[in-house]
Amino acid sequence: MNVYAEKLVPIIKDQMVAVEESLFEKVESQVKIVDDIGIHLIKAGGKRLRPALYLLCSYDANLPLKENASLAASLELIHMATLVHDDVIDEASTRRGQPTANTLWGNKISVLAGDYLLAMAFSSIADFIKPREIQVMANTIALVCEGEILQNINAFNADITMEDYKRKTFQKTANFIASSCELGAIRANFTEEQISQIQTYGNCLGMAFQITDDILDITGNAKQIGKPAGNDLKQGIITLPVIYALKNSPHQEELRKLVSSTEITDDEVAKALEITRECGAVEYSYDIVRDYLQNAKNILPKELSLEVKNSLINVIDFVESRDY
Amino acid sequence: MNVYAEKLVPIIKDQMVAVEESLFEKVESQVKIVDDIGIHLIKAGGKRLRPALYLLCSYDANLPLKENASLAASLELIHMATLVHDDVIDEASTRRGQPTANTLWGNKISVLAGDYLLAMAFSSIADFIKPREIQVMANTIALVCEGEILQNINAFNADITMEDYKRKTFQKTANFIASSCELGAIRANFTEEQISQIQTYGNCLGMAFQITDDILDITGNAKQIGKPAGNDLKQGIITLPVIYALKNSPHQEELRKLVSSTEITDDEVAKALEITRECGAVEYSYDIVRDYLQNAKNILPKELSLEVKNSLINVIDFVESRDY
Repeated sequence: MNVYAEKLVPIIKDQMVAVEESLFEKVESQVKIVDDIGIHLIKAGGKRLRPALYLLCSYDANLPLKENASLAASLELIHMATLVHDDVIDEASTRRGQPTANTLWGNKISVLAGDYLLAMAFSSIADFIKPREIQVMANTIALVCEGEILQNINAFNADITMEDYKRKTFQKTANFIASSCELGAIRANFTEEQISQIQTYGNCLGMAFQITDDILDITGNAKQIGKPAGNDLKQGIITLPVIYALKNSPHQEELRKLVSSTEITDDEVAKALEITRECGAVEYSYDIVRDYLQNAKNILPKELSLEVKNSLINVIDFVESRDY
Repeated sequence: MNVYAEKLVPIIKDQMVAVEESLFEKVESQVKIVDDIGIHLIKAGGKRLRPALYLLCSYDANLPLKENASLAASLELIHMATLVHDDVIDEASTRRGQPTANTLWGNKISVLAGDYLLAMAFSSIADFIKPREIQVMANTIALVCEGEILQNINAFNADITMEDYKRKTFQKTANFIASSCELGAIRANFTEEQISQIQTYGNCLGMAFQITDDILDITGNAKQIGKPAGNDLKQGIITLPVIYALKNSPHQEELRKLVSSTEITDDEVAKALEITRECGAVEYSYDIVRDYLQNAKNILPKELSLEVKNSLINVIDFVESRDY
């Protein structure tokens, strides 16, 4: 479900339409299969959170629509590229209820298609992007990769600390969301202090967003998460609620054995989820989410227009209540 | 073997040392394994053809060493990234006699490490790169991906035409070499006509370079090619000499059956190589190589300094006589 379609951010409705158009333009290729993959990925949808945040944070500067939508679309393209590579890496067969690129076209072509999207994300904005903005975008990709690698290294590692988790989550998810906000603020010519505040808003929002994702994987309440509960544990990804349970559950030893097993069965996953849920880990995690979201709300610069501020708060509320 | 170490291009000796230093700086990461992969890739070596060509084509402008070496190193970084992804895709266990990243660290981390290198290639030059230059670099990556995808689609397809082959080879290899030259010429402030000539030099050189590679895979004369002869056929890659043989060999029907088989055995590969060699395909291919190299020599702009011109001709001679 698209963020703007949720009527959370009606002020950027026109821009979000332009973002979709820009996405289709960017994935155009003379090689038909490349075209097909791009179109499939766009049509598979997504929340379009990064472009929406970019557009909101740059909204007050009233920048030219075409360029602005194009930069926003490039952020989504980078996000898509990382998802395509993620799905290859995780051997995922579906995402958002749709078959993944690797299912439809195989791993080889999907790796290359991901690279292609990364290239197009830069090539399509080359004529107007500024040095600092390239830096932010390229660094974001680098951090996502490092975050993914950290997650990979720590797979099935029950000794992972809260600090490891937070570092990985910052690099893999929160920083990208923070950078989308930061880029908007940079292009809107905010002061350095305001840019930093807006970036912190994004960072807190991103942390909350990922932890909510992690919680939904534990509670299995996901309406449209598009993957079964316990999916993280199956892949050895030990998330915040589980880290809490590993420290605080009366069954922590049993949980430790379960989540360390690289050949964890479906029954064992169910058991691990039960142990995690029973010790208050979900409530603890939601408290952390609320803290992050409160911080996000508090840090928003006063100088933002009321309509932008309200939209950014709507996005906070969306993350707080989301069940997909 | 490094191009400059071959004493072909002594005029850029200092710059090539700076390129190596810059490479090590660029791959630095706080995540140890990312660092390790980067260092492994740099130490595994390579011809450093792209940075050398960039430096030669920009030489006459006497640009600041640090920036120039950094841009050159970013070209090599992009090349490395594509090789890392290639090796994952081809399930290659060695390259240049060294174990590949996927052998040492697995496919997952290698895909991410490739993305990381792509990101660092841009992030590290963000503060001085110009719009047109980003465009050239990003487009180069996009074309490499499209070329690889074309190659993949046409695997084991005995109906592949000379035109298909040339398009794929341009996109996958020649354009990158042409772009390295073009970037040098752009930064050296050559006229548009000269830039175009220098780019054509690179394109012809690149085509010749790839066809030589293809020939070496047929003749098996490769001293240091780091892979067994017939490797292309095993992967279903039908190269220029084989396309010639499929049209001109008296055993074309047998060859067609052999190269179309997705489960071609070592004996069958040997037979296909024999058929290809016997019909004059290697001689034909070398003629094409010589044509390209002659064109490369002829198109070099008169305005280049003698020392640059001589160096660029040395690179032509290197491609003409290379057996690795």
